Amino acid sequence: MRRVRGYVAERELVVKLWKMGFAVMRAPASGSKIKKAKYPDVVAIKSCKVIVFEVKSRSKIDNIYIDEEQIRKLREFTDRAGGQAFIAVKTPGGMWKAVELGQLEKLNNTYKVSKDVLLKSKELDEVLRDLKLIPTLEDFIK
Amino acid sequence: MRRVRGYVAERELVVKLWKMGFAVMRAPASGSKIKKAKYPDVVAIKSCKVIVFEVKSRSKIDNIYIDEEQIRKLREFTDRAGGQAFIAVKTPGGMWKAVELGQLEKLNNTYKVSKDVLLKSKELDEVLRDLKLIPTLEDFIK
Repeated sequence: MRRVRGYVAERELVVKLWKMGFAVMRAPASGSKIKKAKYPDVVAIKSCKVIVFEVKSRSKIDNIYIDEEQIRKLREFTDRAGGQAFIAVKTPGGMWKAVELGQLEKLNNTYKVSKDVLLKSKELDEVLRDLKLIPTLEDFIK
Repeated sequence: MRRVRGYVAERELVVKLWKMGFAVMRAPASGSKIKKAKYPDVVAIKSCKVIVFEVKSRSKIDNIYIDEEQIRKLREFTDRAGGQAFIAVKTPGGMWKAVELGQLEKLNNTYKVSKDVLLKSKELDEVLRDLKLIPTLEDFIK
Protein backbone atom coordinates (compact mmCIF):
# COMPACT_ATOMS: atom_id res chain seq x y z
CA MET A 1 0.00 0.00 0.00
CA ARG A 2 2.69 2.43 1.05
CA ARG A 3 4.77 1.25 -1.91
CA VAL A 4 1.96 1.98 -4.36
CA ARG A 5 1.35 5.38 -2.79
CA GLY A 6 5.08 6.08 -3.01
CA TYR A 7 5.11 5.19 -6.70
CA VAL A 8 2.13 7.43 -7.46
CA ALA A 9 3.69 10.30 -5.51
CA GLU A 10 7.00 9.93 -7.38
CA ARG A 11 5.23 10.13 -10.69
CA GLU A 12 3.27 13.17 -9.56
CA LEU A 13 6.50 14.89 -8.51
CA VAL A 14 8.10 14.09 -11.88
CA VAL A 15 5.18 15.66 -13.75
CA LYS A 16 5.16 18.71 -11.45
CA LEU A 17 8.88 19.36 -11.94
CA TRP A 18 8.71 18.72 -15.69
CA LYS A 19 5.96 21.37 -15.98
CA MET A 20 8.26 23.76 -14.09
CA GLY A 21 10.84 23.34 -16.85
CA PHE A 22 13.18 20.83 -15.22
CA ALA A 23 14.75 17.86 -16.95
CA VAL A 24 13.52 15.09 -14.66
CA MET A 25 14.63 11.49 -14.23
CA ARG A 26 12.96 8.85 -12.07
CA ALA A 27 14.81 5.85 -10.74
CA PRO A 28 14.18 2.45 -12.30
CA ALA A 29 12.37 -0.28 -10.36
CA SER A 30 10.66 2.05 -7.91
CA GLY A 31 10.39 0.59 -4.45
CA SER A 32 12.69 -2.33 -5.13
CA LYS A 33 15.73 -3.14 -3.04
CA ILE A 34 17.97 -2.66 -6.05
CA LYS A 35 16.87 0.88 -6.64
CA LYS A 36 17.19 1.82 -3.01
CA ALA A 37 20.77 0.64 -3.05
CA LYS A 38 21.75 2.71 -6.08
CA TYR A 39 19.58 5.56 -7.18
CA PRO A 40 17.77 8.47 -5.63
CA ASP A 41 14.01 8.50 -6.31
CA VAL A 42 13.95 11.58 -8.51
CA VAL A 43 16.63 13.84 -9.99
CA ALA A 44 15.67 17.22 -11.44
CA ILE A 45 18.08 19.38 -13.43
CA LYS A 46 17.66 22.91 -14.76
CA SER A 47 20.33 25.10 -16.28
CA CYS A 48 23.07 22.91 -14.80
CA LYS A 49 21.60 22.98 -11.29
CA VAL A 50 20.88 19.55 -9.85
CA ILE A 51 18.25 18.75 -7.21
CA VAL A 52 18.06 15.22 -5.82
CA PHE A 53 14.97 13.87 -4.06
CA GLU A 54 14.05 11.05 -1.77
CA VAL A 55 10.26 10.92 -2.06
CA LYS A 56 7.79 10.13 0.72
CA SER A 57 4.04 10.27 0.77
CA ARG A 58 1.99 10.18 3.95
CA SER A 59 -1.70 10.07 4.65
CA LYS A 60 -1.14 11.87 7.96
CA ILE A 61 1.48 14.23 9.34
CA ASP A 62 3.74 12.15 11.56
CA ASN A 63 7.39 11.27 12.12
CA ILE A 64 9.04 9.74 9.04
CA TYR A 65 11.89 7.25 9.31
CA ILE A 66 14.41 6.67 6.53
CA ASP A 67 17.12 4.00 6.31
CA GLU A 68 20.59 5.29 7.09
CA GLU A 69 21.86 3.51 3.97
CA GLN A 70 19.39 5.35 1.75
CA ILE A 71 20.52 8.71 3.10
CA ARG A 72 24.17 7.72 2.64
CA LYS A 73 23.51 6.86 -1.02
CA LEU A 74 21.51 10.04 -1.52
CA ARG A 75 24.41 12.08 -0.12
CA GLU A 76 26.98 10.29 -2.28
CA PHE A 77 24.96 10.85 -5.45
CA THR A 78 24.42 14.51 -4.57
CA ASP A 79 28.11 15.07 -3.77
CA ARG A 80 29.18 13.51 -7.06
CA ALA A 81 26.64 15.53 -9.02
CA GLY A 82 27.38 18.75 -7.21
CA GLY A 83 23.75 19.27 -6.31
CA GLN A 84 21.41 19.65 -3.38
CA ALA A 85 19.34 16.92 -1.74
CA PHE A 86 15.91 17.07 -0.17
CA ILE A 87 13.33 14.72 1.26
CA ALA A 88 10.20 15.60 -0.72
CA VAL A 89 7.12 14.79 1.33
CA LYS A 90 3.63 14.76 -0.08
CA THR A 91 1.44 15.76 2.84
CA PRO A 92 -2.22 14.78 3.37
CA GLY A 93 -3.57 17.95 1.77
CA GLY A 94 -1.58 17.21 -1.37
CA MET A 95 0.99 19.89 -0.65
CA TRP A 96 4.66 19.07 -1.24
CA LYS A 97 7.16 19.90 1.51
CA ALA A 98 10.95 19.89 1.06
CA VAL A 99 13.07 18.86 4.04
CA GLU A 100 16.81 19.56 3.95
CA LEU A 101 19.11 16.73 5.03
CA GLY A 102 20.51 18.92 7.80
CA GLN A 103 17.06 18.81 9.42
CA LEU A 104 17.14 15.04 9.83
CA GLU A 105 17.71 13.54 13.23
CA LYS A 106 20.12 10.59 13.41
CA LEU A 107 18.92 7.59 15.41
CA ASN A 108 20.49 4.12 15.43
CA ASN A 109 20.23 2.87 11.84
CA THR A 110 17.73 5.43 10.71
CA TYR A 111 17.19 9.08 10.15
CA LYS A 112 14.06 10.70 11.45
CA VAL A 113 12.09 13.59 10.01
CA SER A 114 10.17 14.64 13.09
CA LYS A 115 6.55 15.69 12.83
CA ASP A 116 7.63 19.11 14.08
CA VAL A 117 10.35 19.54 11.44
CA LEU A 118 7.89 18.44 8.77
CA LEU A 119 5.31 20.99 9.86
CA LYS A 120 7.89 23.80 9.88
CA SER A 121 9.51 22.82 6.56
CA LYS A 122 9.10 25.03 3.54
CA GLU A 123 6.90 24.14 0.65
CA LEU A 124 8.82 22.64 -2.27
CA ASP A 125 7.77 25.52 -4.53
CA GLU A 126 9.15 28.06 -2.08
CA VAL A 127 12.47 26.21 -1.88
CA LEU A 128 12.72 26.15 -5.69
CA ARG A 129 11.95 29.86 -5.84
CA ASP A 130 14.62 30.57 -3.19
CA LEU A 131 17.11 28.65 -5.32
CA LYS A 132 16.08 30.82 -8.32
CA LEU A 133 14.98 27.68 -10.14
CA ILE A 134 11.43 28.85 -10.71
CA PRO A 135 10.25 32.44 -11.03
CA THR A 136 8.85 34.43 -8.12
CA LEU A 137 5.96 36.85 -8.30
CA GLU A 138 8.51 39.68 -8.31
CA ASP A 139 10.03 38.33 -11.51
CA PHE A 140 6.71 38.96 -13.22
CA ILE A 141 6.36 42.50 -11.81
CA LYS A 142 9.82 43.61 -12.93
CA MET B 1 17.86 -9.98 -28.61
CA ARG B 2 18.83 -6.42 -29.45
CA ARG B 3 16.76 -5.26 -26.48
CA VAL B 4 18.61 -7.56 -24.10
CA ARG B 5 21.97 -6.47 -25.51
CA GLY B 6 20.88 -2.85 -25.12
CA TYR B 7 19.94 -3.41 -21.50
CA VAL B 8 23.27 -5.08 -20.71
CA ALA B 9 25.18 -2.29 -22.46
CA GLU B 10 23.31 0.41 -20.53
CA ARG B 11 24.16 -1.26 -17.26
CA GLU B 12 27.80 -1.57 -18.31
CA LEU B 13 27.91 2.15 -19.16
CA VAL B 14 26.36 3.05 -15.80
CA VAL B 15 29.03 1.07 -13.94
CA LYS B 16 31.83 2.56 -16.09
CA LEU B 17 30.68 6.14 -15.46
CA TRP B 18 30.09 5.52 -11.75
CA LYS B 19 33.68 4.26 -11.42
CA MET B 20 34.84 7.48 -13.11
CA GLY B 21 33.19 9.45 -10.31
CA PHE B 22 29.94 10.47 -11.99
CA ALA B 23 26.53 10.44 -10.35
CA VAL B 24 24.69 8.20 -12.81
CA MET B 25 20.99 7.56 -13.38
CA ARG B 26 19.50 4.99 -15.71
CA ALA B 27 16.00 5.33 -17.12
CA PRO B 28 13.23 3.13 -15.76
CA ALA B 29 11.70 0.38 -17.90
CA SER B 30 14.63 0.05 -20.26
CA GLY B 31 13.61 -0.68 -23.80
CA SER B 32 9.94 -0.02 -23.23
CA LYS B 33 7.91 2.38 -25.32
CA ILE B 34 7.15 4.45 -22.24
CA LYS B 35 10.77 5.07 -21.46
CA LYS B 36 11.59 5.97 -25.04
CA ALA B 37 8.89 8.60 -24.94
CA LYS B 38 10.18 10.25 -21.79
CA TYR B 39 13.66 9.60 -20.59
CA PRO B 40 17.14 9.39 -22.04
CA ASP B 41 18.86 6.03 -21.46
CA VAL B 42 21.56 7.27 -19.12
CA VAL B 43 22.30 10.61 -17.44
CA ALA B 44 25.71 11.24 -15.87
CA ILE B 45 26.48 14.27 -13.71
CA LYS B 46 29.76 15.43 -12.22
CA SER B 47 30.45 18.73 -10.51
CA CYS B 48 27.29 20.23 -12.02
CA LYS B 49 28.14 19.12 -15.57
CA VAL B 50 25.45 16.99 -17.19
CA ILE B 51 26.02 14.42 -19.94
CA VAL B 52 23.01 12.71 -21.50
CA PHE B 53 23.26 9.44 -23.41
CA GLU B 54 21.24 7.44 -25.87
CA VAL B 55 22.86 4.00 -25.69
CA LYS B 56 23.37 1.59 -28.59
CA SER B 57 25.20 -1.70 -28.74
CA ARG B 58 26.16 -3.40 -31.98
CA SER B 59 27.78 -6.71 -32.80
CA LYS B 60 29.21 -5.23 -35.99
CA ILE B 61 30.16 -1.76 -37.17
CA ASP B 62 27.35 -0.59 -39.42
CA ASN B 63 24.91 2.29 -39.91
CA ILE B 64 22.72 2.91 -36.87
CA TYR B 65 19.20 4.33 -37.20
CA ILE B 66 17.46 6.17 -34.37
CA ASP B 67 13.85 7.35 -34.19
CA GLU B 68 13.41 11.06 -34.81
CA GLU B 69 11.17 11.24 -31.74
CA GLN B 70 13.87 9.76 -29.52
CA ILE B 71 16.37 12.36 -30.66
CA ARG B 72 13.82 15.14 -30.14
CA LYS B 73 13.24 13.99 -26.55
CA LEU B 74 16.96 13.63 -25.97
CA ARG B 75 17.49 17.21 -27.15
CA GLU B 76 14.67 18.57 -25.03
CA PHE B 77 15.98 16.87 -21.89
CA THR B 78 19.51 18.10 -22.60
CA ASP B 79 18.36 21.67 -23.26
CA ARG B 80 16.38 21.78 -20.03
CA ALA B 81 19.27 20.32 -18.04
CA GLY B 82 21.85 22.54 -19.68
CA GLY B 83 24.01 19.59 -20.65
CA GLN B 84 25.51 17.81 -23.63
CA ALA B 85 24.06 14.82 -25.44
CA PHE B 86 25.79 11.90 -27.12
CA ILE B 87 24.94 8.61 -28.73
CA ALA B 88 27.09 6.15 -26.80
CA VAL B 89 27.83 3.14 -28.98
CA LYS B 90 29.36 -0.06 -27.67
CA THR B 91 31.35 -1.41 -30.61
CA PRO B 92 32.15 -5.09 -31.27
CA GLY B 93 35.56 -4.92 -29.58
CA GLY B 94 33.87 -3.64 -26.42
CA MET B 95 35.11 -0.09 -26.92
CA TRP B 96 32.68 2.78 -26.28
CA LYS B 97 32.37 5.50 -28.91
CA ALA B 98 30.62 8.84 -28.35
CA VAL B 99 28.82 10.39 -31.32
CA GLU B 100 27.74 14.03 -31.08
CA LEU B 101 24.21 14.84 -32.23
CA GLY B 102 25.61 17.21 -34.84
CA GLN B 103 27.13 14.18 -36.57
CA LEU B 104 23.75 12.57 -37.15
CA GLU B 105 22.26 12.54 -40.61
CA LYS B 106 18.55 13.37 -40.88
CA LEU B 107 16.49 11.03 -43.06
CA ASN B 108 12.69 10.86 -43.19
CA ASN B 109 11.57 9.88 -39.68
CA THR B 110 14.95 8.76 -38.51
CA TYR B 111 18.42 9.92 -37.78
CA LYS B 112 21.34 7.92 -39.08
CA VAL B 113 24.78 7.43 -37.56
CA SER B 114 26.68 6.35 -40.63
CA LYS B 115 29.25 3.58 -40.44
CA ASP B 116 31.85 6.16 -41.46
CA VAL B 117 30.91 8.65 -38.73
CA LEU B 118 30.96 5.84 -36.19
CA LEU B 119 34.44 4.75 -37.24
CA LYS B 120 35.76 8.32 -37.03
CA SER B 121 34.05 9.17 -33.73
CA LYS B 122 36.11 9.65 -30.63
CA GLU B 123 36.24 7.14 -27.82
CA LEU B 124 33.95 8.04 -24.95
CA ASP B 125 36.91 8.30 -22.57
CA GLU B 126 38.61 10.79 -24.86
CA VAL B 127 35.45 12.93 -25.05
CA LEU B 128 35.17 12.94 -21.25
CA ARG B 129 38.83 13.92 -20.94
CA ASP B 130 38.32 16.75 -23.46
CA LEU B 131 35.40 17.99 -21.36
CA LYS B 132 37.70 17.92 -18.28
CA LEU B 133 35.37 15.42 -16.66
CA ILE B 134 38.01 12.77 -16.14
CA PRO B 135 41.74 13.35 -15.67
CA THR B 136 44.23 13.16 -18.52
CA LEU B 137 47.73 11.72 -18.28
CA GLU B 138 49.05 15.29 -18.08
CA ASP B 139 47.05 15.87 -14.92
CA PHE B 140 49.10 13.14 -13.26
CA ILE B 141 52.41 14.53 -14.51
CA LYS B 142 51.77 18.07 -13.28
